[in-house]
Amino acid sequence: MAHIDLGNELPGIRGLMQYRPETAAPLNALAEVLLRSDDNTLSRGERELIGTYVSHLNDCFFCQNVHGALAGHYLNCNIDEIDAIKTDFNKTALSPKMKSLLSIAASVQKGGKSVTQNQIEQAKISGATEIEIHDTVLIAAAFCMFNRYVDGLATWSPQDRNFFINRAAQRAEDGYLKLG
Amino acid sequence: MAHIDLGNELPGIRGLMQYRPETAAPLNALAEVLLRSDDNTLSRGERELIGTYVSHLNDCFFCQNVHGALAGHYLNCNIDEIDAIKTDFNKTALSPKMKSLLSIAASVQKGGKSVTQNQIEQAKISGATEIEIHDTVLIAAAFCMFNRYVDGLATWSPQDRNFFINRAAQRAEDGYLKLG
Repeated sequence: MAHIDLGNELPGIRGLMQYRPETAAPLNALAEVLLRSDDNTLSRGERELIGTYVSHLNDCFFCQNVHGALAGHYLNCNIDEIDAIKTDFNKTALSPKMKSLLSIAASVQKGGKSVTQNQIEQAKISGATEIEIHDTVLIAAAFCMFNRYVDGLATWSPQDRNFFINRAAQRAEDGYLKLG
Repeated sequence: MAHIDLGNELPGIRGLMQYRPETAAPLNALAEVLLRSDDNTLSRGERELIGTYVSHLNDCFFCQNVHGALAGHYLNCNIDEIDAIKTDFNKTALSPKMKSLLSIAASVQKGGKSVTQNQIEQAKISGATEIEIHDTVLIAAAFCMFNRYVDGLATWSPQDRNFFINRAAQRAEDGYLKLG
């Protein structure tokens, strides 16, 4: 049960957003531009994967499953492949660029000052643009917010991971702005 | 020097926001509603203080000084009093309610699951409403994002703390929406 009475039965951040629509609006606007905007050289799947990985590092069950299912939907891979990335992305077939960006995201999860000049250089060598590095840092930072919001208020989550997988296509269709 | 070429000389998050106005807009909208909206039983000073404290815990020099100066402006206290709160708020004259909310904010900074049922009960006993608890968790979570964004891209900051103190009154007047 959540720490406060949300007055609704929606899971995870959805319940919080219905409880407090004033803050839901900018949060959804942020998710929409960061994760879905078309003028971005990182694909929607790559951006959802960064959010999934950070949510995994923060041990947020709801977020890592919502966004893991979306990443799987966009990248056309199954839950086992997403789990393999979460466990050790270096052992997967991800591109060197994505590996370098996930490495930066992992450092951001620990704290902003954990990001090293060497990580930035490696990302650039592997083909990441400066705006891709910017967006990776901001996506990772934003999920450090979303994860803390969801778990800091002890929201509930469906435990069956198929719940998220089954809804991913519709969520991808709807986007984030309809959630407010 | 920042990890990426921002193309401007603005400090901290200001430089990032000018570099990427698409993400600046929802970030500023979030700060405005969370920290400044009038329909909130936490004062602007109390909300800025929560952000200041979390920024201190995250060791983000820019954010803790911007928002510490704003908290001091709103609460009519000086930098030494703000510093004393950051060092050990339990030893200050803050209300039991604010102490209980800062305790929750400190747990959110560690991770969402660090918030305990006992902390929530203590906050309620000391007079905090459920929406105040909600907003405290979200403010703390949001600063875990802002701090990581600012330091994860290694933005520069003025080192003279008077820079922030001298600008606080004007910043309080302007609000966050003009920054985008």
